[in-house]
Amino acid sequence: MSVAMLTVDRERLWRRLMQLAEIGRFGTTGVDRQALTAGDLEAKLWLIGWARERRLDISTDAIGNLFVRRRGTDPQALPVAIGSHLDTEARGGRFDGAFGVVAAMELVDALIDLGIETRCPVDLVVWNNEEGCRFHPGCMGSRSHADPSLLTAMLTSRDPDGIDVEAALRSHEVALRHLPQRALGGPLGAFLEAHIEQGPLLERADRAVAAVAGIQGRRIYEVTVTGRTDHAGTVPHATRSDALERATGLLQRLYARASAEPDIRITPGRLLVEPNSPSVVPGRVILMVDIRHPDASTLNEIPSWLASLAPAQADPPAISVTEIDRMDPATFDAALTEVAAAASVALGGLDTPLISGASHDAHALAGHCPTTMVFVRCRGGVSHHEDEYASPEDLAIGTRALSACLLHACGIVSLPQPM
Amino acid sequence: MSVAMLTVDRERLWRRLMQLAEIGRFGTTGVDRQALTAGDLEAKLWLIGWARERRLDISTDAIGNLFVRRRGTDPQALPVAIGSHLDTEARGGRFDGAFGVVAAMELVDALIDLGIETRCPVDLVVWNNEEGCRFHPGCMGSRSHADPSLLTAMLTSRDPDGIDVEAALRSHEVALRHLPQRALGGPLGAFLEAHIEQGPLLERADRAVAAVAGIQGRRIYEVTVTGRTDHAGTVPHATRSDALERATGLLQRLYARASAEPDIRITPGRLLVEPNSPSVVPGRVILMVDIRHPDASTLNEIPSWLASLAPAQADPPAISVTEIDRMDPATFDAALTEVAAAASVALGGLDTPLISGASHDAHALAGHCPTTMVFVRCRGGVSHHEDEYASPEDLAIGTRALSACLLHACGIVSLPQPM
Repeated sequence: MSVAMLTVDRERLWRRLMQLAEIGRFGTTGVDRQALTAGDLEAKLWLIGWARERRLDISTDAIGNLFVRRRGTDPQALPVAIGSHLDTEARGGRFDGAFGVVAAMELVDALIDLGIETRCPVDLVVWNNEEGCRFHPGCMGSRSHADPSLLTAMLTSRDPDGIDVEAALRSHEVALRHLPQRALGGPLGAFLEAHIEQGPLLERADRAVAAVAGIQGRRIYEVTVTGRTDHAGTVPHATRSDALERATGLLQRLYARASAEPDIRITPGRLLVEPNSPSVVPGRVILMVDIRHPDASTLNEIPSWLASLAPAQADPPAISVTEIDRMDPATFDAALTEVAAAASVALGGLDTPLISGASHDAHALAGHCPTTMVFVRCRGGVSHHEDEYASPEDLAIGTRALSACLLHACGIVSLPQPM
Repeated sequence: MSVAMLTVDRERLWRRLMQLAEIGRFGTTGVDRQALTAGDLEAKLWLIGWARERRLDISTDAIGNLFVRRRGTDPQALPVAIGSHLDTEARGGRFDGAFGVVAAMELVDALIDLGIETRCPVDLVVWNNEEGCRFHPGCMGSRSHADPSLLTAMLTSRDPDGIDVEAALRSHEVALRHLPQRALGGPLGAFLEAHIEQGPLLERADRAVAAVAGIQGRRIYEVTVTGRTDHAGTVPHATRSDALERATGLLQRLYARASAEPDIRITPGRLLVEPNSPSVVPGRVILMVDIRHPDASTLNEIPSWLASLAPAQADPPAISVTEIDRMDPATFDAALTEVAAAASVALGGLDTPLISGASHDAHALAGHCPTTMVFVRCRGGVSHHEDEYASPEDLAIGTRALSACLLHACGIVSLPQPM
């Protein structure tokens, strides 16, 4: 399969990424630009400055997604969307999200500079709050777009200071009040996203780029383990009901399964002990467990598996399990993914598409419109950290691979030489 | 061995305990009267009211211990001290500490009412901050008395609001400024303390009272387990260095030893995970472990044992161990304990002395002067909880057993009948 691709200005792409990395920078290469903070607003204004310069149409919606449109020749055609997010984790890096936005800027620039007209509009999209770091849950903008019925719940989510999304959005709207509002959740012809891999596979395979065939599903459970507080000095071990000892048994079995099944990811990332006093036997442990797998059927069996790990003979029952968040596995559009894979091969990248371990805005969009992603190698698989790094060359190659998907989605099968 | 004992007014003892339980009460039977709070001050003023009525000498010292003296006939004789503490845990009960103080009031009343003169002064002592709940460490008053060089460190200890002991003491001194100051750490002829058992042994043996031969030693260690943060979705289990997984292995081995050796108490009561985010592999776990044993030699080997539990091949070393607090095992005065045991037998209690699992002010005093304790049965072994309970009968029996120790320490071997 041969594919058309746009040329990419590697220096401009890198320069823009480094400009963006100054907004919310900490240390030399760290970025703290959490959703709906002053830094997030500044990054949006930076993008809007570019869009104005290029005479593009700018709009926003009720959950704070930002759209920059290059018009097509057919106003009735569904827009093809490309983009990612501008927010970062509290101690994030320069590439997660930002690369996908800058790659989209680069492709819109290329279409304009080469005078390539498309029938459909091309929408550069910045989805609001992908990381879910300040406001839970993540992929807030893309999930609300795919399912506008989530809007009310999303707007009432509060950050640790008690500020809700609605109030934070209002403060952004003051600065952005000239922007036309777009109805939440309009249909899209496609959604295309470039991203750093955030994993070690491309580096290990010594390749710069890969297509992505889908995203594993994710569940987050809160597991409460109950015991009984006791005096650390007087009560013999045999008569204790130590909640942390029970939780230790549970954790052991979680790690045993995590190490036995290569396709599952089990992360007990959060653990709170009550009363958490050095001389009191713990009475309760609250555990948050993030579990991911490419198969929905495996994920659906997790709650009963977790419940089965409760110690026998405990009265009251020692474990209760509550689902906190869920995203089912996503399978990307076959035709678009095939184009991405062909572009990857043409550029010397991986020939088989990867399954993404991390969630992305494309995860939410996959149920809404034909969607695919392109991954770029990142150093050591590191992300959500100031050490996050991808080379200018690899990022340019990833952007070119994404251009193949964009041209395909816009119905352009070949370009005049030399391109 | 036959022993002299004082009669005890069971109703008055119980009535005073219930009056005291109103100060700082929560719910029906809970008491929150943490050290140097308004409740603690009110309890001291209540005791001072009784002391004034009984024309006793009241004094305090630099760490806020309160002394109520009944003079002896020989001003040169070392005082015999009896007492305990008036502070409680944040969610404590009516008996821990309070019983020892009220029992001492009862015995001073009995000496006065019966017209028994002693050669030595009898000092009722309320040691400041035994629980160590608001200000770390516990047994602050008794430890400072036994070793006045600790004073400066104690005075700078801060509560969670940043208030230090010195400032909290000043606010009490305003209310107590009429009290003469006594030099910290003066010599004592003996120290005698009655306390609820806080364990299940007397209830299981169906006995009301026991002598106590000593207190097991205690160490508190902070164990820091280091790993590396990673993305919960992208990084395979085999390549993670999960600090919580490492801590789980450590906890397993702590619990295995706790269950294999009946004399040891191992309580990992406090555990903090960093960054404690559900979707981030933990990078660090900080664990506080309370370890108790009657033998100092076993306790002295604990740090190297803890260090040996570090996973091999971890770089940097995955475990670091810091000692946070230590109290060596205490052995009580043989002669006084023999008197307490004889009194216990005479009153139908246990014939063999117990080893205390919990620490007490007597723990600190044991290195300072001849010391012993008497334990009273408490329901279910429960303490530090609003369900803490001991019956009026058992408390009166315990007070009588303590009176045998008091008379012995004062050199009174027999009393005129009927007593």
